[in-house]
Amino acid sequence: MTNDLQFDSQGQLRNLLTIEGLNRQTILDILNTAESFIAVGEREIKKVPLLRGKTVVNLFFESSTRTRTTFEIAAKRLSADVININPSVSSTNKGETLLDTIDNLEAMHTDLFVVRHKDSGAAYLVAKHLPPHVRLINAGDGRHAHPTQALLDSFTIRQYKKDFSQLRVAIVGDILHSRVARSLIHVLNILGVPEVRVIAPKTLLPVDVEKLGVRCFYDMRTGLEDADVVVMLRLQRERMQGALIPSEQEYFNLYGLTLEKLKHAKDDAIIMHPGPMNRGLEIDSAVADGERAVILPQVTNGIAVRMAVMAIVMGGSAPKDRRPGQ
Amino acid sequence: MTNDLQFDSQGQLRNLLTIEGLNRQTILDILNTAESFIAVGEREIKKVPLLRGKTVVNLFFESSTRTRTTFEIAAKRLSADVININPSVSSTNKGETLLDTIDNLEAMHTDLFVVRHKDSGAAYLVAKHLPPHVRLINAGDGRHAHPTQALLDSFTIRQYKKDFSQLRVAIVGDILHSRVARSLIHVLNILGVPEVRVIAPKTLLPVDVEKLGVRCFYDMRTGLEDADVVVMLRLQRERMQGALIPSEQEYFNLYGLTLEKLKHAKDDAIIMHPGPMNRGLEIDSAVADGERAVILPQVTNGIAVRMAVMAIVMGGSAPKDRRPGQ
Amino acid sequence: MTNDLQFDSQGQLRNLLTIEGLNRQTILDILNTAESFIAVGEREIKKVPLLRGKTVVNLFFESSTRTRTTFEIAAKRLSADVININPSVSSTNKGETLLDTIDNLEAMHTDLFVVRHKDSGAAYLVAKHLPPHVRLINAGDGRHAHPTQALLDSFTIRQYKKDFSQLRVAIVGDILHSRVARSLIHVLNILGVPEVRVIAPKTLLPVDVEKLGVRCFYDMRTGLEDADVVVMLRLQRERMQGALIPSEQEYFNLYGLTLEKLKHAKDDAIIMHPGPMNRGLEIDSAVADGERAVILPQVTNGIAVRMAVMAIVMGGSAPKDRRPGQ
Repeated sequence: MTNDLQFDSQGQLRNLLTIEGLNRQTILDILNTAESFIAVGEREIKKVPLLRGKTVVNLFFESSTRTRTTFEIAAKRLSADVININPSVSSTNKGETLLDTIDNLEAMHTDLFVVRHKDSGAAYLVAKHLPPHVRLINAGDGRHAHPTQALLDSFTIRQYKKDFSQLRVAIVGDILHSRVARSLIHVLNILGVPEVRVIAPKTLLPVDVEKLGVRCFYDMRTGLEDADVVVMLRLQRERMQGALIPSEQEYFNLYGLTLEKLKHAKDDAIIMHPGPMNRGLEIDSAVADGERAVILPQVTNGIAVRMAVMAIVMGGSAPKDRRPGQ
Repeated sequence: MTNDLQFDSQGQLRNLLTIEGLNRQTILDILNTAESFIAVGEREIKKVPLLRGKTVVNLFFESSTRTRTTFEIAAKRLSADVININPSVSSTNKGETLLDTIDNLEAMHTDLFVVRHKDSGAAYLVAKHLPPHVRLINAGDGRHAHPTQALLDSFTIRQYKKDFSQLRVAIVGDILHSRVARSLIHVLNILGVPEVRVIAPKTLLPVDVEKLGVRCFYDMRTGLEDADVVVMLRLQRERMQGALIPSEQEYFNLYGLTLEKLKHAKDDAIIMHPGPMNRGLEIDSAVADGERAVILPQVTNGIAVRMAVMAIVMGGSAPKDRRPGQ
Repeated sequence: MTNDLQFDSQGQLRNLLTIEGLNRQTILDILNTAESFIAVGEREIKKVPLLRGKTVVNLFFESSTRTRTTFEIAAKRLSADVININPSVSSTNKGETLLDTIDNLEAMHTDLFVVRHKDSGAAYLVAKHLPPHVRLINAGDGRHAHPTQALLDSFTIRQYKKDFSQLRVAIVGDILHSRVARSLIHVLNILGVPEVRVIAPKTLLPVDVEKLGVRCFYDMRTGLEDADVVVMLRLQRERMQGALIPSEQEYFNLYGLTLEKLKHAKDDAIIMHPGPMNRGLEIDSAVADGERAVILPQVTNGIAVRMAVMAIVMGGSAPKDRRPGQ
């Protein structure tokens, strides 16, 4: 049902809501398109005219300067006009409904919505409501999905590890509340990564997490053993309030990534983090700033991947044959 | 006196402060220019170079994401550079006066101010202060005027009803506090609409409202009888606090537009609303989402009308012979 | 040490952190480049393609709509893409460090940071952290420096007085807390102004202020005697809370610039103020709006000077021979 929204009748990607339902070729097409946008970011004039005269709306119901900035830069480098809207401080508090807000913006002949919302399913709800010629990219909805993050993560993994078919990837931290983890697990499974692991205390793992296609570890050292890629998740400090985690210090002792714990992973393992980092909580600075961390390349790749997704859903440079298999 | 500010010595519109003082031809010229900008919004590349290299300042002392967005999109489609300023959170709270803020922005060689302010007359005050080569559009000042809203409303009425000379238009709700109503009544009178009605409880009607050129109705059904156009106003929920309105439920029963009440209007009556709507308060969802509602076309037309007003006051495509009659 | 950051190995200005360490020629080169940008602001199409395809980040940890606007306009007239970030309301309150924020933005291939921060030395800290190809302009850090303000002030002085070598400049007000005063004193000394005076109550003067190269006056009339240029500083009303100043009325009586006090300066003295003004506190409206005030020309010049600094640090139109003498 989501795929009816994600693909048009020719099998072209028209909205990006979630990784689920994408097939391997679609994902590789996005990564390959992103490859060509990496060069744009390194040029003297970082601008291509693909979306000239198009209006992109950054609609962030949940505020995130960092993610909004990446989409704003990506859209501007594609020559689009960008409108930033943070409805938490605008007309929704005048009593207007979410869908009325969307209808209004769409009536202004906007072309692409980038939506972030604290509720799972919000992006789906909006995309379903939009007419087919208006496109949508999910920039994170509740605990559900954060597909561009998963795509930039897999782009980064491919950049450093070339081949997905021999990898052991460990994702560490608050899996339960993390849309990043959810989307990443899906993308890695689709790309054929043979072993995806999650490492977390039981209180931060969803029930039946194995059904997502992962192996569970409660102990950091065992879980990191021979990993090629370690993905650290951001721990929301507000979780500390409840009984989910003992204390910051104890969490760091058990699940914070230190050079010592990292020894259990492969010697050439890369370290990833979606940011913003809590140094000294989920990751030690010696690791975050170390030579195996690829946290900043993730950010660089994030611009290229978002340019690629924007270009593809807008039909600008859509690669061929992206019809989903299922 | 306002017209000395609205027109230059050649009779060209240079500021848009209020509908009062505009003559029929000026208004028709704006609507006709807007017609040509409708096409721009439907193009593949929604951009014309009319205001390239010009700096437009969206100066919203009263915050309104929706209206600010329409002006921002309009200006960007004309290729202007747009600066958004919300002085309620900026240097006016450093003790600077309104006119010092204006002087400063003008000294930066800005070309066009779009001003919204909670005080009636603020736009006039600013325009009077600006040098003649800098232009101003009133985006709503207190209870006084909201001229671009009235223009987009009349554009929409013309689109659906072709001819103003046979129409019965009913405006329903809080006439007393509404700059939208005030501006709309003026524009409809100038355009020769033979019967403009206002429908409201006495507490929400200005004293001597008939002098504006309208017929008053306190009863919704009588007022809607044979109307061609029904314009619902937004009810500010904060009015509920005082004694102006009994209760939300009672207001809806008496003045909320329902399919049942709508039967009193003509079969082909169109329903308008300036937004944002309070569904279930002044309008029922069955009406708002019904086929006779033209609320979203109003939004679409709003972009074209604002582009037209911007282009005209900037001298970009000023139609001939707009000298006011008086 | 700062100059290692301000100049590259060829002696080209690559960051502007502070006036200290700049030599006379560097400053004159900036002023001369600004001269050519004055014309751009007066053109029909106020745009040059110098920074096309570059991404400028306005990173304002301390919010200032006025200064942010000048940099935003300057960057857009140079055709750059501009991203406004106000981290006080963004991810730094998610616990991310300043340098992580910088790293992230830099990883997005941004080209130029314009940084404002409440802490002295913040701009230096950021510039030191950035790779050499990314440039930085200090838009005000704590009490330390506000170099573009000092440059636009000296540009304005040159515009009205032609020659720096015969001038008597008096700076009046809260010298102690003013980065504007500090940077201005430096620039005037470097440009060879023979007499720079500061006038303030003892509580608002730094210890050993004479070492900066100024003459101190506690009395306004004596200090203004035969001045060619009078620079009034903004008084932060929050200082009133402490014991630094007696009362607003008494401060105005002693140090507020009135027409009466101004008689002590030369007949053709010009009056400057960095804005926003507290009328009736540090300056009387009769002076602020009088014919000798050049406060609005300062604003106009501010755009041209900021365009010049941006163009020069980005290597766009870097004048020759700006190698510092020391």
